[in-house]
Amino acid sequence: MSFRDDGAAAVEWAARYLEQVGEYPVLAQVRPGDITSRLPASPPERGEPFADVLRDVDEILLPGITHWQSPRFFAYFAVSASEPGILAELLAATLNSVAFLWRTSPASTELETVTLDWTAQLLGLPDGWHGHIEDTASTSTIAALAAAREATGRNVVVCSEHAHSSVDKAAKLLGLDVRKVPADAEFRLRVEELDLTDAAAVVATVGTTSIASVDPVPAIADACASAGAWLHVDAAYAGSAWVCPELRWSQAGVDRADSLVVNAHKWLFTPMDCSLLWSRRPEDLRRAFSLVPEYLRTSDEVDSLSDYGPALGRRFRSLKLWAVLRCYGREGLQARIREAVRLAELFEGWVRDEPGWEVCAPRHFSLVCFRRDGSDADNEGIVERVNRSGELFLSHTRLGGRYVLRLAVGNERTTEEDVLRAWAALRQA
Amino acid sequence: MSFRDDGAAAVEWAARYLEQVGEYPVLAQVRPGDITSRLPASPPERGEPFADVLRDVDEILLPGITHWQSPRFFAYFAVSASEPGILAELLAATLNSVAFLWRTSPASTELETVTLDWTAQLLGLPDGWHGHIEDTASTSTIAALAAAREATGRNVVVCSEHAHSSVDKAAKLLGLDVRKVPADAEFRLRVEELDLTDAAAVVATVGTTSIASVDPVPAIADACASAGAWLHVDAAYAGSAWVCPELRWSQAGVDRADSLVVNAHKWLFTPMDCSLLWSRRPEDLRRAFSLVPEYLRTSDEVDSLSDYGPALGRRFRSLKLWAVLRCYGREGLQARIREAVRLAELFEGWVRDEPGWEVCAPRHFSLVCFRRDGSDADNEGIVERVNRSGELFLSHTRLGGRYVLRLAVGNERTTEEDVLRAWAALRQA
Repeated sequence: MSFRDDGAAAVEWAARYLEQVGEYPVLAQVRPGDITSRLPASPPERGEPFADVLRDVDEILLPGITHWQSPRFFAYFAVSASEPGILAELLAATLNSVAFLWRTSPASTELETVTLDWTAQLLGLPDGWHGHIEDTASTSTIAALAAAREATGRNVVVCSEHAHSSVDKAAKLLGLDVRKVPADAEFRLRVEELDLTDAAAVVATVGTTSIASVDPVPAIADACASAGAWLHVDAAYAGSAWVCPELRWSQAGVDRADSLVVNAHKWLFTPMDCSLLWSRRPEDLRRAFSLVPEYLRTSDEVDSLSDYGPALGRRFRSLKLWAVLRCYGREGLQARIREAVRLAELFEGWVRDEPGWEVCAPRHFSLVCFRRDGSDADNEGIVERVNRSGELFLSHTRLGGRYVLRLAVGNERTTEEDVLRAWAALRQA
Repeated sequence: MSFRDDGAAAVEWAARYLEQVGEYPVLAQVRPGDITSRLPASPPERGEPFADVLRDVDEILLPGITHWQSPRFFAYFAVSASEPGILAELLAATLNSVAFLWRTSPASTELETVTLDWTAQLLGLPDGWHGHIEDTASTSTIAALAAAREATGRNVVVCSEHAHSSVDKAAKLLGLDVRKVPADAEFRLRVEELDLTDAAAVVATVGTTSIASVDPVPAIADACASAGAWLHVDAAYAGSAWVCPELRWSQAGVDRADSLVVNAHKWLFTPMDCSLLWSRRPEDLRRAFSLVPEYLRTSDEVDSLSDYGPALGRRFRSLKLWAVLRCYGREGLQARIREAVRLAELFEGWVRDEPGWEVCAPRHFSLVCFRRDGSDADNEGIVERVNRSGELFLSHTRLGGRYVLRLAVGNERTTEEDVLRAWAALRQA
C-alpha cells in the first residue's frame, strides 16, 4: 500500500470516528490490564501493513479509549480537537520540524510568534507581550516560576488553596516552598491574608480547576507590585473565554501580570498539546533557561524559543493553532465559546429549579458545580453510576468538605440535547 | 468542504511533500523576519476554508522550512518522521486523548507501557524496567535528575565535558550544581577523574552530541555503586542503534543504570516528540512527582504515568511509536539503522582517502566528524557555503579548540547518492 492509500484510510477512519464518537461509551468500560492483555507481548520481527494497525486501533484500542471528543464528555475541562487542528497535526508531523533554533525552522519560530500575537489580540491582551508555546500548563508554570526565582532570588510561591496542583508540582521541582492562602465564600483567594514575605511569585487563577472561580487579580497585582513579587496568572481554562468581550470582566488586572498561561488545547479547539505562555518580562525567562553550547551556535542574530522554557527540541505546534484561528476566525471562536456558556447556564437553571438538587458555586463560564441532597457517598454513587453507564462522563471535586459534582461544557460538538441527556441520566442515577 | 475532502487534500499535500522534499533547499533560504512579513498582522474575523491554509503553507511557510525530512539533512542528528508515524499522529490528534490518569485514557496508558516494553526488548534492555514517554530528552533528564535528588538528598550532578547542554539546563532548573569531568583522547569521560563527593547523579552519555563518543559506562556504574549516586544514561541518539546486535558493544554497563533515555524521534523513525525514559527505580520518580489533588482522585487502583514526570496532561504519543514498531518490525528497523551506519562509514572512508581532509574522531555510529586542512575560518566558510547552497545542511562542533564539521546520517530517505552529492558539494566549497 502506498502512503496515499494508507493516508486515505486514516482520514476515512478519522472522519467516521468523529461522526460516531457520540455513540461510544464516554468513559472507557474496561478494567486495568484489559488492553494490555489483548496486545502481543513482543513486537513483530517483520513489518506489517498499516491497515493492520488501523484494524487494531478499532478492535483492540477503541474499547480502552475514554472519548474526549464525545459531545457528552463533561469531566475535568471538556476540550475539542477541531478538524482544522487535527489536519494541521498531520502536516506538522509530515514536516517534522524541530525548531530549537531559528534556522532549524524559521517558519515554525516565526509562525509561533505571529499566532501568539494573533491570539493576544483576540483575547484583548496588552500589546508587546512575548509569547511562545509549551506542551502543557504544568510546563508553562515551571517556566514562569523559574523566571520568577531568577528575577527575585526568592524561594516562596504563594497561591490560593484552589490553585491547580501543577503549582505544587512545579514548586517541588524548583525547590520552592508553597504558601497556600485561604479562599473566600466564592472560592477566591483572600487578598487580606496574602503574606508576600520572601515571595518570589504569586500564582493567581482565573478559572480554577475545581470551580472556575476567579481570584481578585487587581488587588493581587497591587500586592505583588509592593512586594516586588512576580505575578503569574493561570488562565489555562478560562483565558480562552476572553475572545468574548462580555467575559472580559474576568481579565481585570491581568494586564499587570508578569506571565500568563492559556491552554489553547483546553477551550480554543486545538488538539493536545498547545499551552500558550506570554510574558512581559521575557528577558527573565531567557536568563532562567538560555544556554548556548558550541554545537548550537549560529551566526543568526535571532532569538531561539527554546531559550524560554525547559525543552530544547520543539515541534511545530503553532501550525494547528494557526489553522484553528484561520478556519474559525474571531466570530467562529466567539460563537463556540458562547454556546458552551449558554449550555452551562441552561444546565445550571435546571439544577436550580429541581427540588433536591443544589448549585454549589457561582457559575462564571461553562462549568457547573452541583450536588444532590444527601451524603457524600450518595453523590459519589451518582457519579460512579452515570460514568459506568457510558452515557456521559463527569468528574467531581470537594468544596467545604463536601463531595461536589462538576459538569464542564466545552466540546464543540455538544448540543442542548446532549446536556439534556446528561441531566436525565443524572436524575435517574 | 467536508473533513473528508480537506483530509484528502492534506494527505495529498503530505504525499507530494514527501516525494519532493529532496528537491528543496535543505536549509531555509530566508532572513529573520521574512516569514513574519508575509503573514497578516491580525487574525481573520471570519473563518476561512482549510484549503486557504494549505495554500499558504506552500506559498508562505514552505520557503521558511528547514527540511528535516530531506535526504540531505546531515546536521545535528538527522531524523525521520516515517509514514506510519505520521499517520498515527493524525489518529492521535483525532482521538485527542489526555492521559493524565489511567481512566482518562486506559488505552493510551497501557499502550505506552506495552510499546516501551517492546522497545526495551528490541534494544536488549533488562526485563522489568518501568518505561514512559516524555516530550524531549531535556524533560527526561529533568525527570531523572529530580528522582536522583529525591533519592539521594544530594545536589551535585557529574558528567563529561561532552555531555549535552540539557544536563546543564536541567541542573539549573533543579538547583543542582554541575561538575564537569574532562574527556580522554577519544572524547570519553575520564573515570579516574570522577569525583563523586556529594554526587546525586552521574550522567553518562552513549553517543555524545558533538562526536557520538561513548562514555565508559561499566566503570562509571562501579563508581556510582560505591558512592550511592544515581546513574542516568543519555543514549538519546545512539540507543536506537542497539536494535542491531553488532552495535550493542556500546550498551555495556547500561543494564546497571538507574535511568535511561532514548529518543524515538531521533533514530527510531518516529515523528517529534517521543522521548523514552526507562527506570529501574520508578518509585523514586513517583516520589519526585506524584501529587493527587481531590479533582484527580479516582477509585482506580492504577498508576498514572503523569506521576513519573513534570507534566500532567499527556497526549497519545505511544500510538506513533507502536505504528512504527509494527510497520517496520525488528528487521525493518535493523535494515534502516545498518544502512545509515554503512553510509556514514562510506563517507568516513572518502574523507580519510582524500588529501587535505581529516577525520577528527572515531566513528561509532552514523556520525562523522571531520575537517579540511586550514584555519577554523576556512572550515566555517565551507559550512556556511554548503548550507547556503541549499544542497545539504550540516552543523559543526569544536574539538580540542578546533572547528570541526559534523555529517550525521539518519534520515531513512538518504541514499548513497545523497551522501555522494554532499561530499561533492563539500569538496567544491
